[in-house]
Amino acid sequence: MNVMIMKCKLAHLLVFLSLCTPFLMADNVTLEAESKDSKEVHVTYDKLVEELKHVHRLKSILNLLTWDERVNMPDQSADFRALQQGTLARLVYREFTKQEIGGYLNVLESNGDQLSSAQRALIRETRRKYDRKKSLSEEFVARKKEMESKGYQAWKKARDENDFMLFAPVLEEILVMAREEAGHVGYADDPYAYWVDRYDPGFSVKDIDQYFGELKSGIAPIVAQIQASSVKPSRDILKGFSVKKQKVFITEVISRIGFDFEQGRLDKTIHPFCGGSSEDCRITVNYAKDAPLFSVFGGLHEAGHGLYEQGQPEQYLGTPLGEALVMAMHESQSRLWENQIGHSRVFWEYWEGEYRRLFYRQLRDISSEDFYRAINAVEVNPVRVQSDEVTYNLHVILRYELEKKLLDGSLQVRDLPVAWNKLSEELLGYTPKNDMEGVLQDVHWSIGAFGYFPSYALGNMIAAQLWAQLRQDIPNVDEEIALGNFAPVLVWLRENIHQYGKQYSTKELVKMATGKEMSSQYFLEYLSERYLPLYVGDGEEG
Amino acid sequence: MNVMIMKCKLAHLLVFLSLCTPFLMADNVTLEAESKDSKEVHVTYDKLVEELKHVHRLKSILNLLTWDERVNMPDQSADFRALQQGTLARLVYREFTKQEIGGYLNVLESNGDQLSSAQRALIRETRRKYDRKKSLSEEFVARKKEMESKGYQAWKKARDENDFMLFAPVLEEILVMAREEAGHVGYADDPYAYWVDRYDPGFSVKDIDQYFGELKSGIAPIVAQIQASSVKPSRDILKGFSVKKQKVFITEVISRIGFDFEQGRLDKTIHPFCGGSSEDCRITVNYAKDAPLFSVFGGLHEAGHGLYEQGQPEQYLGTPLGEALVMAMHESQSRLWENQIGHSRVFWEYWEGEYRRLFYRQLRDISSEDFYRAINAVEVNPVRVQSDEVTYNLHVILRYELEKKLLDGSLQVRDLPVAWNKLSEELLGYTPKNDMEGVLQDVHWSIGAFGYFPSYALGNMIAAQLWAQLRQDIPNVDEEIALGNFAPVLVWLRENIHQYGKQYSTKELVKMATGKEMSSQYFLEYLSERYLPLYVGDGEEG
Repeated sequence: MNVMIMKCKLAHLLVFLSLCTPFLMADNVTLEAESKDSKEVHVTYDKLVEELKHVHRLKSILNLLTWDERVNMPDQSADFRALQQGTLARLVYREFTKQEIGGYLNVLESNGDQLSSAQRALIRETRRKYDRKKSLSEEFVARKKEMESKGYQAWKKARDENDFMLFAPVLEEILVMAREEAGHVGYADDPYAYWVDRYDPGFSVKDIDQYFGELKSGIAPIVAQIQASSVKPSRDILKGFSVKKQKVFITEVISRIGFDFEQGRLDKTIHPFCGGSSEDCRITVNYAKDAPLFSVFGGLHEAGHGLYEQGQPEQYLGTPLGEALVMAMHESQSRLWENQIGHSRVFWEYWEGEYRRLFYRQLRDISSEDFYRAINAVEVNPVRVQSDEVTYNLHVILRYELEKKLLDGSLQVRDLPVAWNKLSEELLGYTPKNDMEGVLQDVHWSIGAFGYFPSYALGNMIAAQLWAQLRQDIPNVDEEIALGNFAPVLVWLRENIHQYGKQYSTKELVKMATGKEMSSQYFLEYLSERYLPLYVGDGEEG
Repeated sequence: MNVMIMKCKLAHLLVFLSLCTPFLMADNVTLEAESKDSKEVHVTYDKLVEELKHVHRLKSILNLLTWDERVNMPDQSADFRALQQGTLARLVYREFTKQEIGGYLNVLESNGDQLSSAQRALIRETRRKYDRKKSLSEEFVARKKEMESKGYQAWKKARDENDFMLFAPVLEEILVMAREEAGHVGYADDPYAYWVDRYDPGFSVKDIDQYFGELKSGIAPIVAQIQASSVKPSRDILKGFSVKKQKVFITEVISRIGFDFEQGRLDKTIHPFCGGSSEDCRITVNYAKDAPLFSVFGGLHEAGHGLYEQGQPEQYLGTPLGEALVMAMHESQSRLWENQIGHSRVFWEYWEGEYRRLFYRQLRDISSEDFYRAINAVEVNPVRVQSDEVTYNLHVILRYELEKKLLDGSLQVRDLPVAWNKLSEELLGYTPKNDMEGVLQDVHWSIGAFGYFPSYALGNMIAAQLWAQLRQDIPNVDEEIALGNFAPVLVWLRENIHQYGKQYSTKELVKMATGKEMSSQYFLEYLSERYLPLYVGDGEEG
């Protein structure tokens, strides 16, 4: 499908060749010397699954340490926590890369014809990860970990002092290392392709170039119409919402949409996230008294991630078949609940009464229409995470264009702030006032996470495409949502997405679920249908 | 010191012999072939310490999983949590019992003369644990784990149905296994001695027989005088205390006595406990609206444990020199803060104002004297955990007498309820009305924790003995406490107890701190001085 898969096949072939006696043909993978009887193959498969579940348990503990770090840990215990995490991370690495797992994979790959397609998918995904982990030495992994920490600290300092040049030399080092990693994994010639594949296997730079080109030209006229409109809704009308009641509300909401509190929790952190594991899923939100929508949509967003985790098939938990697809598909799940559903009229048709009951005084002078417009206010914001969904993808495209050039060397780090500001003006019509508002706003590059930004925009595209299909498959979905019945939506997602774990790639699964190739068209249609009626006012919107 | 230590020395000797060339004398441990130069010995020592710290980190993660299980975990995640714990526990076992550690111990034991006495203590304690762990196979440990779970379930069911006979057959199995474990560790002839040593190394059954005989005859006349008194204070006068304010109060109190919230937390669980690790110490309490003293004294008790943990010397954390003594010494620390300090007049001289400020309405009709009497109300209670400190030890003695006989076979499981009730009448003057109120009240035996109960009473004894010494060393301690200054107490405990980790045995450390052998006399004197004035009224009490 792409270079990574080819590389896996190649690696597999080489392993196979090195095991074969000379007279064997390389492309015949079920030869005498390697073929096993069915029982033996299935015993090996079960052993592999046991090993994977063992590693999964350790990894889920690591996730819990991270959750606890952000939710509960006392301040002064941070150093010790880092030691605990380092120790456990090394064990996870060691347990996953041990010889036995490689051995099982070899046997199973040579006897793939005796396995189901789901089982072969499990082996394919395990091999992909195994080869990647093995290709990075423990020494490199440790060095990378240190660099992440160094990068994060330098970024924070630069932010505090609003001076990109304090971060620049470290970013140079981070880039060298990012290219080195790509080289280890076989992408020396095209490091950015590795990073895209790293976070979203199956997508190529060419794919993304195409999608983002379409988004860019499609979003521009929508933004132009909104900006030309005399309608200027604002979120500032919502003030003084008690945090305690905000929590009551979002707990009710995510419980109603299906988040299982018997295997999950909701807590508070400054930066919301979804952590833990499918078996014990822990989401967090933040609350601001004068920005109450933050907890509503943050909660829906994280609950969307949580529902995907909780929807993984139980019998496969701990294996790739019981593991959600990263990153674009995961983001599509959170965005679908946050945006397609949470920002809709029918959603608020059901919830507005309860919201007004909890916040009577805060809302009594605000009409339903003004409230709904506040929710869907569109305004260019210099900061990505504070953007509405109309302009959000432009922020992503900006980062994508720049990181691609940073990786291939056609953009120098020292020139980054100027390039950022120029592109910001071009895409958003806004020139950041300083580095903090511009090039220093996101943490990602400081911890070496290149190729991560595109996933956000891909997720938005997928959410819109799935939503379009879901509305066709469930013609009365609006009526159901307006009645507070979210089960049909969740059932559709469970059946079409969640149940498959990593059995298919993101692109394959989108095609299976919608019958169409992935396309930016659905997202652009969705934006027009949702926002233009509000701003341009030509008719009723959905 | 006792059989266990002798056994360790023997094992060490055997290992040593197997390594020596034939001409070496067995009792000469610094012979040519084994002796190393000083640098090499210290490098080996450092390697051992590194390994121990590595294991400690993993174990501290296991502790955090347990804490999280009780404080945060969603209900339906219990099965997965058990798998996480099992996986990590096996890794801890494997990492601690690996060959390298045994090898380092051998080298260091043969070159003890090149090490400080603290370093030798570290090696002695590591050896003790290493040998015990090694002598139990992974198979046995796994079987024991299963039995604990089976035993706990059977006990719970028997409790629910108030029928000991439902638990009896499983208790038989648990006893067989407890004897088997003692056998593996070299105590086949005297299994109970193993169990006493297991939880309180350094104490023999003979020691405890003596202490408990003295306690029994010393407590009886005190109880008799209290029961004969016309003074009948009651805790029932304290009702309707808001849980939120109870939390405010106990947080203030434990913060003031020195619990470090920068490396610790306070949460709520049904059964209070102190968990986590020295680096990140997490205590819990429970709150009852109509029994407010429960959170005050539960909080002081757990904070006492927490202070001992937080007081471990930083440079030794992760090794036995930075690890608190179990169980009696740990219990002495919690009881000292809970009872000697928390139940005293001077403690409430400082805190009563704040307590009344928080609970004005609940306390306005209660005099300071009545409040203080309520705190120190003595009343025979059939349930150990609800007992006052005068009768508490009698509950312990009852269990001790019975478990000793269960282990040596002189008491049959089927005869246990009758024996329990008979001894209860004898010691407490009370015959339990049913199994739940009697023989089924404690969880300990169901999870195979024999030899654990005595620690509670030993802890009470030690608390009183340390307290007597502390009052001599700090003559104005009452004035300090009455002013809310707890630092002198904590400093004394840090200097005399906390800083030593496991460098000395409990008995040794008590002697070092007080200049006297451990004795029951201090506890009996303390009881008389605290309680008789309240009930018999002959003078002023401390």
